[in-house]
Amino acid sequence: MSIQITQIENRPIGIFDSGVGGLTVVKEIFRVLPYEEIVYLGDTARVPYGTKSSESVKRFSIENFEFLLRFNVKMVIVACNTASSTSLPILRNRFKIPIVGVIKPGAERAAGLTKNGKIGVIGTATTVKSKAYEKEIKRICKTVKIVSKACPLFVPLAEEGLLNGKITFDIAKYYLNPLVRKRIDTLVLGCTHYPLLKKVISRVVGKDVKIIDSASSVAEEVANTLRSNKLLSSESRKPANSFFATDAVEQFVKVGKRFLGKKISKVKKAILS
Amino acid sequence: MSIQITQIENRPIGIFDSGVGGLTVVKEIFRVLPYEEIVYLGDTARVPYGTKSSESVKRFSIENFEFLLRFNVKMVIVACNTASSTSLPILRNRFKIPIVGVIKPGAERAAGLTKNGKIGVIGTATTVKSKAYEKEIKRICKTVKIVSKACPLFVPLAEEGLLNGKITFDIAKYYLNPLVRKRIDTLVLGCTHYPLLKKVISRVVGKDVKIIDSASSVAEEVANTLRSNKLLSSESRKPANSFFATDAVEQFVKVGKRFLGKKISKVKKAILS
Repeated sequence: MSIQITQIENRPIGIFDSGVGGLTVVKEIFRVLPYEEIVYLGDTARVPYGTKSSESVKRFSIENFEFLLRFNVKMVIVACNTASSTSLPILRNRFKIPIVGVIKPGAERAAGLTKNGKIGVIGTATTVKSKAYEKEIKRICKTVKIVSKACPLFVPLAEEGLLNGKITFDIAKYYLNPLVRKRIDTLVLGCTHYPLLKKVISRVVGKDVKIIDSASSVAEEVANTLRSNKLLSSESRKPANSFFATDAVEQFVKVGKRFLGKKISKVKKAILS
Repeated sequence: MSIQITQIENRPIGIFDSGVGGLTVVKEIFRVLPYEEIVYLGDTARVPYGTKSSESVKRFSIENFEFLLRFNVKMVIVACNTASSTSLPILRNRFKIPIVGVIKPGAERAAGLTKNGKIGVIGTATTVKSKAYEKEIKRICKTVKIVSKACPLFVPLAEEGLLNGKITFDIAKYYLNPLVRKRIDTLVLGCTHYPLLKKVISRVVGKDVKIIDSASSVAEEVANTLRSNKLLSSESRKPANSFFATDAVEQFVKVGKRFLGKKISKVKKAILS
């Protein structure tokens, strides 16, 4: 009998999202931290979170977190804007491992990039209602003006793969024209689904508006957090990662490819309770 | 102390749906059976069902049913096409009270109305994948040709209140033009959200195509079922109805009005487990 003892820093990083959107964050983690092992959970049985109450999203987030803890994760990334905007305080209070959300990295980058001090933020209804980005950006820089807009049709468009074309362009114009009229020079994509629509969004807001997809900032924040907690993996081989979904694993494989930019070989069904 | 004993036939009718869509059925029940008491459950914490696996939808349906049984309901209406198309056999096997789904009434009406024998069916991805309408229509009439199409963006459009206008029209054209080209003369709206988009749908398919919204057929089927089981209410006053949602009750009140055609005075939060 062989007993395998994993060194504390070589344990996996847990990541959860309401569905496949968080895979845009995983893609960046792969790039920045290629030797970190990932355990990903997509809560596809209850997706979307963006139209649910913050009370329910908090409950879902705790259940997702507890599932990831079964894998002895060393930290957790809340790779969902709606969950980050509503549940980070309750998660930090309850669980004592490092937690990185997606709001702060995006907010910091936006505050650092704007020149005219006018930032647009788009996200789900619940994210926009939470004012999480406004609060975070204002904390960093008080003089900035923020214009927010919920774009509920962007998630189904991205999930359906309608990433280009006239319908998507018209819907983007419908949501974004009010922000263009306010002359924003920076736009935060406050939902992990939105990077898939970046081309169309960019066409609507114009090429002078800087578009911030927080995935790469999140990966940097994760690297910093691991470093400061002495938790960076000491491995020098690419690890085997695990992907779980609470429902429809075949659909996860199919749609997930668009978000991750490569095929996911295996997705297992997660039972949370 | 007074003990109130409700006569067996004066117990309420239970209705569940994934969200607010089933209120289009409630509206018809109010019209056809004004003295029947209703207990409605919208599973807004897990909405939508139409993109979830049939395995998960079955589990959700059983949990919803068990919630309604707490109110001593005399029958249950499964007012959700996705739940009806996947879960009726398992529910009928498990629960011994009368159950009415939304597929059969719509299928019967379509089979009875088509003249050229070409019927279109639109619904969620899971409903279309289940082939429930095809099987039911073919059971009634073998020679009919059926063309099905999943329309995943229709639910978010209806929930957002984008019921008219160019965007909705273009999306409807995108989904329905293949059905128009197949020269259907009858179109089944196989999702309780779709009646809200009826005007736009009708503009796209043309006024010669008969559009079947199963809500009114369902109300007739409910009346027949109550009659044959001797369960029609003996009350002659309008009863007090109850509405429950598993999440976001304020949103339910707001959006529900569009579906019910009148204000819902009170919605209570339902805890299923």
